[in-house]
Amino acid sequence: MFPIRSLISSKTPSLRQFSSATTPQVLRPGDILGQSRRFTEEDVIQYSKVSHDSNPLHTDPVAARDVGFEGPLVHGMLVASLFPRIISSHFPGAVYVSQSLNFKFPVYIGDHITGEVEATHLRENKNRYLAKFKTRCLKNGELLVIEGEATAILPTLTFEQEQCKDC
Amino acid sequence: MFPIRSLISSKTPSLRQFSSATTPQVLRPGDILGQSRRFTEEDVIQYSKVSHDSNPLHTDPVAARDVGFEGPLVHGMLVASLFPRIISSHFPGAVYVSQSLNFKFPVYIGDHITGEVEATHLRENKNRYLAKFKTRCLKNGELLVIEGEATAILPTLTFEQEQCKDC
Repeated sequence: MFPIRSLISSKTPSLRQFSSATTPQVLRPGDILGQSRRFTEEDVIQYSKVSHDSNPLHTDPVAARDVGFEGPLVHGMLVASLFPRIISSHFPGAVYVSQSLNFKFPVYIGDHITGEVEATHLRENKNRYLAKFKTRCLKNGELLVIEGEATAILPTLTFEQEQCKDC
Repeated sequence: MFPIRSLISSKTPSLRQFSSATTPQVLRPGDILGQSRRFTEEDVIQYSKVSHDSNPLHTDPVAARDVGFEGPLVHGMLVASLFPRIISSHFPGAVYVSQSLNFKFPVYIGDHITGEVEATHLRENKNRYLAKFKTRCLKNGELLVIEGEATAILPTLTFEQEQCKDC
């Protein structure tokens, strides 16, 4: 079997959410892992509770519209939680080292958001692996709403591609 | 009244959690705003649910100890949620633009964590304000566990210093 360089290629969006490969893969630079999600009003309420973030832009439609948004925003840090989720679901036991986040466009409740992490550098160190990723979230498969980079320590480079549960 | 340059000075830790100033302040470069929190096991469970992040390092003491930690870790992104919470609680309606995060030491359930945001650059633009902050979380008032920078658009530079609720 040929190694799959881009497990969820940005050039083949139809493959993004429907990969059913279960054969173990070995992560290599250029590989892209992704998961999709639609954040609900309940998600925003629950995140507001656990984060103690009471910014009215997330819960008050009038406050959100008053500053030019279409409606309440999903918290950027909740949307960005897709990145560690993607990494740790493929590599349980991964330890997060860094994450940069640029919030470029608003994410509203119900938007279809695809998170992607693209491996860029992998380095072995004492039977563990320091992995760097480009990270991005796309709205409706095309609008870049969050971009940045992440670094994590992975226990292994071997993983199984899982089927998306929330697409 | 003299402007308070460092509302929660790092040189006067005893003031950090007990500021009771209620007079409106105007944010200026050098000001530090902060809030403290102890994350509970329930917080970690609730965050795991809302983020769909099932990394065993956050819920399984054996998995956490197997890789050298003292116990289950609080999700780094949950700890980092202190930053937008601090900004939006002082400036309701703030819009988050960017955040960088370097996770330097683990945060365990029950640790006393103080989040601080220090204003570094403030620029007016069309009756709103682009504000840059240095951001950091300290464990037990001294160990730097997360550091980075944030940028937010603030509706005003005027705020009221609130008393910490969870210290």
